[in-house]
Amino acid sequence: MPSTRTLIQGGTVVTAVDTYAADVAIIDDKIAAIFGPGAAPPGPWDVTIDATGKYILPGGIDAHTHMDMPFGGTTASDDFETGTRAAAYGGTTTIVDFAIQTKGDPLRKGLDLWHNKAEGKGAIDYAFHMIMTDVNDQTIPEMGQVVSEGVTSFKMFMAYPGVLFVDDGQIFRGMQRAAELGALICMHAENGIPIDILVQQALAKGHTAPIYHGLTRPQIAEAEGTHRAICLAEMAGAPVYMVHLSAERALKQVVEARDRGLPTFAETCPQYLFLSQDDMARPDFEGAKYVCTPPLRPAHMQEDLWRGLRTHDLQVVSTDHCPFCQKGQKELGKDNFAKIPNGMPGVETRLYLLWDGGVRKGRISMNRFVEITATAPAKIFGLYPKKGTIAVGADADLLVWDGEKRHLLSENTLHMRVDYSPYEGREVVGAPTHVLSRGKVVVENGQYVGKKGDGRFVKRGTFNLM
Amino acid sequence: MPSTRTLIQGGTVVTAVDTYAADVAIIDDKIAAIFGPGAAPPGPWDVTIDATGKYILPGGIDAHTHMDMPFGGTTASDDFETGTRAAAYGGTTTIVDFAIQTKGDPLRKGLDLWHNKAEGKGAIDYAFHMIMTDVNDQTIPEMGQVVSEGVTSFKMFMAYPGVLFVDDGQIFRGMQRAAELGALICMHAENGIPIDILVQQALAKGHTAPIYHGLTRPQIAEAEGTHRAICLAEMAGAPVYMVHLSAERALKQVVEARDRGLPTFAETCPQYLFLSQDDMARPDFEGAKYVCTPPLRPAHMQEDLWRGLRTHDLQVVSTDHCPFCQKGQKELGKDNFAKIPNGMPGVETRLYLLWDGGVRKGRISMNRFVEITATAPAKIFGLYPKKGTIAVGADADLLVWDGEKRHLLSENTLHMRVDYSPYEGREVVGAPTHVLSRGKVVVENGQYVGKKGDGRFVKRGTFNLM
Amino acid sequence: MPSTRTLIQGGTVVTAVDTYAADVAIIDDKIAAIFGPGAAPPGPWDVTIDATGKYILPGGIDAHTHMDMPFGGTTASDDFETGTRAAAYGGTTTIVDFAIQTKGDPLRKGLDLWHNKAEGKGAIDYAFHMIMTDVNDQTIPEMGQVVSEGVTSFKMFMAYPGVLFVDDGQIFRGMQRAAELGALICMHAENGIPIDILVQQALAKGHTAPIYHGLTRPQIAEAEGTHRAICLAEMAGAPVYMVHLSAERALKQVVEARDRGLPTFAETCPQYLFLSQDDMARPDFEGAKYVCTPPLRPAHMQEDLWRGLRTHDLQVVSTDHCPFCQKGQKELGKDNFAKIPNGMPGVETRLYLLWDGGVRKGRISMNRFVEITATAPAKIFGLYPKKGTIAVGADADLLVWDGEKRHLLSENTLHMRVDYSPYEGREVVGAPTHVLSRGKVVVENGQYVGKKGDGRFVKRGTFNLM
Amino acid sequence: MPSTRTLIQGGTVVTAVDTYAADVAIIDDKIAAIFGPGAAPPGPWDVTIDATGKYILPGGIDAHTHMDMPFGGTTASDDFETGTRAAAYGGTTTIVDFAIQTKGDPLRKGLDLWHNKAEGKGAIDYAFHMIMTDVNDQTIPEMGQVVSEGVTSFKMFMAYPGVLFVDDGQIFRGMQRAAELGALICMHAENGIPIDILVQQALAKGHTAPIYHGLTRPQIAEAEGTHRAICLAEMAGAPVYMVHLSAERALKQVVEARDRGLPTFAETCPQYLFLSQDDMARPDFEGAKYVCTPPLRPAHMQEDLWRGLRTHDLQVVSTDHCPFCQKGQKELGKDNFAKIPNGMPGVETRLYLLWDGGVRKGRISMNRFVEITATAPAKIFGLYPKKGTIAVGADADLLVWDGEKRHLLSENTLHMRVDYSPYEGREVVGAPTHVLSRGKVVVENGQYVGKKGDGRFVKRGTFNLM
Repeated sequence: MPSTRTLIQGGTVVTAVDTYAADVAIIDDKIAAIFGPGAAPPGPWDVTIDATGKYILPGGIDAHTHMDMPFGGTTASDDFETGTRAAAYGGTTTIVDFAIQTKGDPLRKGLDLWHNKAEGKGAIDYAFHMIMTDVNDQTIPEMGQVVSEGVTSFKMFMAYPGVLFVDDGQIFRGMQRAAELGALICMHAENGIPIDILVQQALAKGHTAPIYHGLTRPQIAEAEGTHRAICLAEMAGAPVYMVHLSAERALKQVVEARDRGLPTFAETCPQYLFLSQDDMARPDFEGAKYVCTPPLRPAHMQEDLWRGLRTHDLQVVSTDHCPFCQKGQKELGKDNFAKIPNGMPGVETRLYLLWDGGVRKGRISMNRFVEITATAPAKIFGLYPKKGTIAVGADADLLVWDGEKRHLLSENTLHMRVDYSPYEGREVVGAPTHVLSRGKVVVENGQYVGKKGDGRFVKRGTFNLM
Repeated sequence: MPSTRTLIQGGTVVTAVDTYAADVAIIDDKIAAIFGPGAAPPGPWDVTIDATGKYILPGGIDAHTHMDMPFGGTTASDDFETGTRAAAYGGTTTIVDFAIQTKGDPLRKGLDLWHNKAEGKGAIDYAFHMIMTDVNDQTIPEMGQVVSEGVTSFKMFMAYPGVLFVDDGQIFRGMQRAAELGALICMHAENGIPIDILVQQALAKGHTAPIYHGLTRPQIAEAEGTHRAICLAEMAGAPVYMVHLSAERALKQVVEARDRGLPTFAETCPQYLFLSQDDMARPDFEGAKYVCTPPLRPAHMQEDLWRGLRTHDLQVVSTDHCPFCQKGQKELGKDNFAKIPNGMPGVETRLYLLWDGGVRKGRISMNRFVEITATAPAKIFGLYPKKGTIAVGADADLLVWDGEKRHLLSENTLHMRVDYSPYEGREVVGAPTHVLSRGKVVVENGQYVGKKGDGRFVKRGTFNLM
Repeated sequence: MPSTRTLIQGGTVVTAVDTYAADVAIIDDKIAAIFGPGAAPPGPWDVTIDATGKYILPGGIDAHTHMDMPFGGTTASDDFETGTRAAAYGGTTTIVDFAIQTKGDPLRKGLDLWHNKAEGKGAIDYAFHMIMTDVNDQTIPEMGQVVSEGVTSFKMFMAYPGVLFVDDGQIFRGMQRAAELGALICMHAENGIPIDILVQQALAKGHTAPIYHGLTRPQIAEAEGTHRAICLAEMAGAPVYMVHLSAERALKQVVEARDRGLPTFAETCPQYLFLSQDDMARPDFEGAKYVCTPPLRPAHMQEDLWRGLRTHDLQVVSTDHCPFCQKGQKELGKDNFAKIPNGMPGVETRLYLLWDGGVRKGRISMNRFVEITATAPAKIFGLYPKKGTIAVGADADLLVWDGEKRHLLSENTLHMRVDYSPYEGREVVGAPTHVLSRGKVVVENGQYVGKKGDGRFVKRGTFNLM
Repeated sequence: MPSTRTLIQGGTVVTAVDTYAADVAIIDDKIAAIFGPGAAPPGPWDVTIDATGKYILPGGIDAHTHMDMPFGGTTASDDFETGTRAAAYGGTTTIVDFAIQTKGDPLRKGLDLWHNKAEGKGAIDYAFHMIMTDVNDQTIPEMGQVVSEGVTSFKMFMAYPGVLFVDDGQIFRGMQRAAELGALICMHAENGIPIDILVQQALAKGHTAPIYHGLTRPQIAEAEGTHRAICLAEMAGAPVYMVHLSAERALKQVVEARDRGLPTFAETCPQYLFLSQDDMARPDFEGAKYVCTPPLRPAHMQEDLWRGLRTHDLQVVSTDHCPFCQKGQKELGKDNFAKIPNGMPGVETRLYLLWDGGVRKGRISMNRFVEITATAPAKIFGLYPKKGTIAVGADADLLVWDGEKRHLLSENTLHMRVDYSPYEGREVVGAPTHVLSRGKVVVENGQYVGKKGDGRFVKRGTFNLM
């Protein structure tokens, strides 16, 4: 089959460290050459894309999504087809979703199930983390097999006792095993045990509104879990990655660990940077739209998280995309906040929000934008150097990004399969004009031009940042 | 019955804050008056004690002893008779021992058992903490009754899974209840779960010597538990007291909590101030004599603990007295360090060591000596103002202390019922010439002159240092 | 001369550590005996004071006053007569004032001048610190003589360049010498050099109102000076005492130093606990009444200072009493905030405010009240055990304190010689019914019954808290 | 003039973030294109360099050198000719040297002098910082002119009173002005005032040996200066850069500032990473070879500095190259350590040591090596994107680096003009086979093939990392 040769001309390449004017040449699915202005040969090129006045960015990597995930008696409303297509619209070209081991079942079964959910549906490439709900003599040996299949990170929960919760012994044994395998433990680091007691106590007092979801999950519970995860990892000689860090005191734990040189990593999510506890208090059950876990925090903590992104104490912004419709899903908790499915849509809006509220507001540089949305997750999760940067040899997962394009965030303009947007009516500036997945244009000027199944499963490498 | 009038003449009274020349007058069991030199009336006095050139100190309060306690298939070698008599010899006039609830049984049963163990045997006054091994719908209501009987503190274990361990939910509910009752939670704050895994892994490798007791219980496990206990207490709005804090990083957690103004308290023990991990490594199973939990730490941490005592971040020095004979008891772990009964003798030697190694070495002042051995435990555990200070109205639990008296620490010179001394051969300076328990001389110039049963159970008040 | 025998009956004695019902017997100027209720002999007593339902407290020690002090072309409005009488009204029985060395003159000359200012005027006892404005080959040898005369602390200024400022070399040499002599360096720890630049820049922009006094002295300048003072003291092997600590970040420096075990001490003042930057912004030049240095800080820092008092990171509350009348004095800065004399009245109101706003509001205990107002300054500044506590042998500087007495703070009700009160109209609860200075009642039920000259100069001992 | 076309083939490009196989095409002095393996056109190329099995790195940037600098009555032994040639041998392609303003003279004069010293002599490109010894109404206005000429950073000294020292007012005004201009203040952050007192005291006691240089400059003095510099910069709203950070506690200050999000930067030097106080104690005056300022520290601090490099708290490794011959120069201090010229040779050995002791020992990654030796100094000092990275459009300052080449460090093998090597006899692995300066090969297989004057003055841009 003859090669396809593509040239993106006249743009400004932005990587995690560099910013320079260049033309980017792609042969088939890889970046083949980078030319200074005027240095590219005249062609012939099969495809040329004019990036004049625009940026060329690595496609976004969203390291935390939950497509087609059962939760609390319902299922996240996006599946791999709708969810990855929405991701592509928003400039994300790889997701790392969570395959779930069901308690009592082998890892294999959960992983197979997720492969089945995703197979042939992806608009963009995807990979998996593995959620372990049992860490025992059956599942620990299985971890090696899972890693060998390119699923090189395992998530565990300190929250949700009786459902997803694993105890400190399971965590510790899992970390020891992960350290041997070069795998990474991702931790939901909220101590769910006192939280569940507070939830029962709140309900017993008749406190049923969505805001009580937040009030029963104080940040101390997250700070505690974060410190404990760090200590267990240090004892096990393992790195650890905190998912969806939301709170000032949890961040403080990460800062202290990193200052001591420990291999501690953490992501936050746009909802913690742009929304707050006040949203959960909206009247008429509208607060339910904003119920996710950890909960949205008091607004002043947003600045702590932005500072953490600037100081590199937070390395990644992922979405924890886990949408539930207000109608029929969130409504399950109409009379009991504890029954509201936890989660919010986000896979499509991450880059919009971070460019507009981060780069344009002067909170982070363009290079840092690239690092937290693509390069850092690629490196931490073993997708690098295949993905996450712009360099010859890498997959041509690229965005032509118009830094000045205006865009309205709304249920109507967005493509996620959910009946609301938490950012309804917010105008943002900055959007992709072209989204390339392995060299192929899949979104062009706001139109999806790819097809279901373009995206493939990506085997990830082991952890190598120690 | 006519009163007995006693005058201690010519001494220097030392309290937690003051040092002054005075005569102390006692009527029956209470301090009745304090006179400046020459101001006391000529008498008649039933008893006069010459304290010229000596100090008058409050009797020691040892807030952490385990008399007659079953552990690991054997029983601590001192019972309430031998143990409290040894305490009196060493200048301690009150102990707070631990009554244990057996899993599945009511608190009542454990408390009754300990009353039976102690009744009529004490040489000095005694009180109880209550160890809870179940915190549930049966025992939580019982806590109020226990408190009303003068047992106002409850101990819980983060260590010893399957034996004494309680989980975070039990701890949290216990703390909430304690906060309501004005009771104090005492925490064994070592995360025993990863420790037990490390123990099994060490044994599987054939590491059976006593030193592995220490190597499988790294200080991180204690730092983790300490932070978690502080967080759970903060969530519950309760004070918390760390028992036998042994390690630099655990101390750091307490320091940070106290800097933030939290009601966090901690004790250390003489063994952590004067002995080290090196002792556990002694050859020919002699290391077993030094097996206690938390384990003895690297020697450099001793200075951290002394600094903590000076900065008030550690408030109390207790003993964790829990003696087991080398012969027949410690030997149970000859081939498996995990079977060595955990504990060391100490109730008799606390004041000797702290005066000699603390006051005389210039590490702490005399006032601080009084505070950490008597006043602070009295205040924290509700024995104050009855005990723990020298003031009119207080119990006449007093020491006439010769600051220059030489004393050899040895199995032969000490009175605890155990076949070794961890301090064998160490000469210390400073010892009581008279020990008064509620006004009655029970030790005089190294002779026990009291009698079994002099000591009574003391009901303690609730926590009032918030 | 026959002795005078006084008995204070039926009160509750409060010391820094103890609280107990007792009668206090005084012979002449000293506490002679303390009796439990009913244990005091029937007399005869020359004086009996009924303290039933009241507290017996050590008289207050104000370690920071400026009587009769020249500043900015005027002189503090209270002299030793009016100022010490006002102190007595408010329950303070000892002040430590600042004798000032004039640049170029020997210490001797400044000390003599202050002895002259005070001699025969005091209503209560007084002592001196010595302010050094030159630390050089002339004055360093003089320090020994000054110490031998009972002036055992030296104050230096990092602020006021060209006036009181001494550079780091002078500070360091002074600290080295102080360490040799057992003297204590008191530091005004604000870096005045960048402050003076900010002042000039503000004035150049036409910013002349009182609030600019605060805005040109940011807390960073105090945090910087505090850290520097701590470092210089550590290098010199000397203790150091921060006067009038006002700000959260300065406190943080002290906390860290003390956590490391350094002999770092600090006082705050009532104005930083009860007033704020907002007062400096009052219209119509009323803000000038609130101009002192360091300036009043944003109100949220009050809680940091209260926490510091609870955690013992702040040991003392002094007043920095330095009153200037609004009329004729503060008005000097009508058109230029930099010409407003720096200082506020306070020697009379300290105990009222701390009892009402501290003890009654539950922020500090009664024992801590005694410690920060009397015992700690006595110990730090070598007045102990003569002053600062209630114990046999100590000076009978005592208060009978009615904890429920209502009192209006107002220019009209107070006795300081100044034409305003910063607390005008505030009602407080708690006041002395009797104030005894060395055994003599000087204030009784709000009436001054002493006489000018009752108060004597007190030689202080050297520093002994290392 | 026709272009020169150069191709570096078959190497592995390493940038601060990426590592990939590529050919690098250069046209004249710039990088023109980067090709994936096999993607480069066949030519013709004027020059081809085979980099098979080797790395292609950005040339080193040494942001701290002192060529031809007068100090203590003598002059640094390397001038711009010998020093820059030695730099080229070692793989450094740009230096930033320090032009010095003489007290009382205008900046202009010092800058002109340094231009004269350097003009026509450089083997590689060079830039200047400006040392200010007066910051006053004459020199502050001059700063703008200096910046406009591409000298965009100013160094100030808290050390060397009477020589280079500027006081806090000068520093603060300089920082304010720098903030306006987009210039950066580089701080020698050791409080030299107490140090000079300690030096005099040591000499007075007859302590004349080189080791006393270290003992009289304790790390507290550097920690103090570092904190003060940070505070002054925060007050001025300016970034600040600590030169030659050497000590654990100074690092701690930087860590805390950066954790708070302040624009605080710091470099360390190889001598602090690889040598220690023990070297200064070498007998027979050999310690003099190791006298530099700040002094070499206790060896355990090396690990603190490596950790700081890993955590990004230290951003740069520069050399503080300032060589003095043992004979005739260091000997000036034979009888008085204070007369030993302060400084060590280093411009040639930086990359050798960091590759061998950093990358190969696993302490830092290759990407981090590139960042600390080239990219970070380029970005911080306004040389980026012209220098410091490998990207199209950048200057072709490149190294072909053989990561396995063995090299002996010795006075005999090195090219700096000085009669000793502090690393005499140490074998290191890793060295450049080709050094390109603006596209021209200047060192090839250990031979210098460039010529005097190849290097040009580089105007730097203003600071843009806020």
